[in-house]
Amino acid sequence: MKIVAYQGEPGAYSESASQNYFKEKITLSPSTTFNDVFLKVKKGTADFGVVPIENSLYGSIFETHDLLRKYSFKVIGEAYQQINHYLMSDKKYEMSKIKKIYSHPQALGQCSDFLNSLKKVSVLPVYDTAGAAKMIAENPGNAEAAIASKRAAEVYGLKIIKGNIQNNSENFTRFLVISKNGVEVKAEDAKTSLCFELKSMPGSLFRALSVFALRDIDLTKIESRPLKKRAFEYLFFVDLKGNMKDQKIINAINHLKEISQSVMVFGSYEMGKTYRS
Amino acid sequence: MKIVAYQGEPGAYSESASQNYFKEKITLSPSTTFNDVFLKVKKGTADFGVVPIENSLYGSIFETHDLLRKYSFKVIGEAYQQINHYLMSDKKYEMSKIKKIYSHPQALGQCSDFLNSLKKVSVLPVYDTAGAAKMIAENPGNAEAAIASKRAAEVYGLKIIKGNIQNNSENFTRFLVISKNGVEVKAEDAKTSLCFELKSMPGSLFRALSVFALRDIDLTKIESRPLKKRAFEYLFFVDLKGNMKDQKIINAINHLKEISQSVMVFGSYEMGKTYRS
Repeated sequence: MKIVAYQGEPGAYSESASQNYFKEKITLSPSTTFNDVFLKVKKGTADFGVVPIENSLYGSIFETHDLLRKYSFKVIGEAYQQINHYLMSDKKYEMSKIKKIYSHPQALGQCSDFLNSLKKVSVLPVYDTAGAAKMIAENPGNAEAAIASKRAAEVYGLKIIKGNIQNNSENFTRFLVISKNGVEVKAEDAKTSLCFELKSMPGSLFRALSVFALRDIDLTKIESRPLKKRAFEYLFFVDLKGNMKDQKIINAINHLKEISQSVMVFGSYEMGKTYRS
Repeated sequence: MKIVAYQGEPGAYSESASQNYFKEKITLSPSTTFNDVFLKVKKGTADFGVVPIENSLYGSIFETHDLLRKYSFKVIGEAYQQINHYLMSDKKYEMSKIKKIYSHPQALGQCSDFLNSLKKVSVLPVYDTAGAAKMIAENPGNAEAAIASKRAAEVYGLKIIKGNIQNNSENFTRFLVISKNGVEVKAEDAKTSLCFELKSMPGSLFRALSVFALRDIDLTKIESRPLKKRAFEYLFFVDLKGNMKDQKIINAINHLKEISQSVMVFGSYEMGKTYRS
C-alpha cells in the first residue's frame, strides 16, 4: 500500500486532500512540519508527500516552493481541496446550548459572520483545527464545540452541529503531490511547473516570458520572488499548460535556459480536480 | 497624535513595524483582524493602518491584497520588518532551568534547531507570540518561557534569556502603510503599486508587461491570481520603480488601461527601509 505523508494531525485538510487525490486505500503518515514530509519522502519512509502550495484567500506558500527546490523532488499531481468549516461537538447540542467554541484563529476569522450572530458564546483560539476537535472529544459533556473539517468530526467521533459556517465558501487550497521520481504523463491537457532565475528585472522578465508567448503557450500562474541573498536577482515560479515531452515545450524551456541564470523543471502532471468537502 | 491601527496584540511584529515606520510618537491601536484595521481607517477611528503584505519565507498575503481592492485605500509607505525571535521569561533563568516553552507554531518551527538542542523541555504551541509572552507575565515563577519579539518582552516586562534563536535570520515581513487618501511623493526613487485584470492569459500578460518593458520601467514584484468567480480572467499585482506623477509612468498606465479589463493604482511611495529587531 502506498504511504503518503502530509503535514498536520489526523483530520487536517491536508489529510482529506491526500485521500481524495489517491482514491485507493493508502497509508496516511501525519507529520509535524512541511520539512518532515519532504524528509520522509527522501528517506523512503513515505512514497509520496502532499503539501499545500497556495490558498485562494491567503496566497502562496513560499516554504513549499523552497523545499521543492532544496530537495529537487518532482511534482506528479495536484488537487484543489475546498476548506469548509463545520461546527462539531460530542453531542448534537442545540445551538443555544453551546457555551464555548474552539478553533484556529484563521478558521475563526473565516467564520466571523456566523460567530458574530451568536450570543453568550466564548470563542477561544487554539493552534490547530483538528487539535480543537480532538480536545472536545477528550473532554465531553461540557457543551463546548470545535470548528474543523468534516473529516475531523469522523476521526474524533464528533457530531456535526452546523455545516457551511464560513463567510466565503470559495476557499480552496491547492496541494501538490510530490515524489522522488517523476511520472510520465500522456495527457494532452497536462500542466508543467518550473522555476527560473533572472538577473535584474526590467527587460529580462519580458524576454523570458517571450519564450512562452511566441510559442502560444498559456501560463496559469506566475510569481516573482527576490533572492534576498543575492540582490538584483529574482526567482520566478511559473505553471504552464503543456507537457514537458511536447516539442513546443522542450523548445521553450531550452530557449529559457539560454537567457536565465538557471531553470528547474518540477514535472508535468494532469490538471487537478477540485474536491468539495 | 496620529492613530495607527495594526493587527495583533501589543508586542506583535506589526506593532514594531508601525512604530519603526512612523518614528514620531503615535497612538497604537491593536485590532483583532486585518478587516478591523481597514474598518478603523474607513470610520476615521484610525488615521493609518499597517498591514503585512508578504513574508520572505511564507509568501504573499492575499487577504491584504483583497482588502486593498475592496476599500480602495491608498498605499502611502512600506516597511521591511525583520522577524527575530527571543526567548523570554519573568526572570533571567539559566537555560538548564527552563521547563516549558510557549509560542505560535510558526515561530516554534522557525526556532526548531535551537529547540532541538534543548533537553527535558516541553514545547507548547499557543496561538500568538505576544499572547505567549503575556501568559508568562501573568503566571510568573514557574520556570516557563515564551518565544516572541523583543518588543513583547518590553511590553510585558519580561527578561530576555536568549536572542537570535531562529534557524534563518533572513526572515522579513513587508508591511504596507495605508490611508484613505494618498500622499504626494516627490522622491525620484518612488515605488508604485497597482493591480490589473486581464482576460485569458497567453499573449495578454506578455502584452501587458510590454507597456512597462518598452518604457524601461523596472518591476520589483509580479504576482498572478486567478479570479475564481470569473473563469479565464486573472488579476495581477505589480510593484514598479517610478512615481505615478512621472510622464513615463502615466503613459504606461494609460497604455495598460487600453488593454486591461480594469486597472487600480494603489499609490506611489518612498522605497521602504529595513528594520532589524
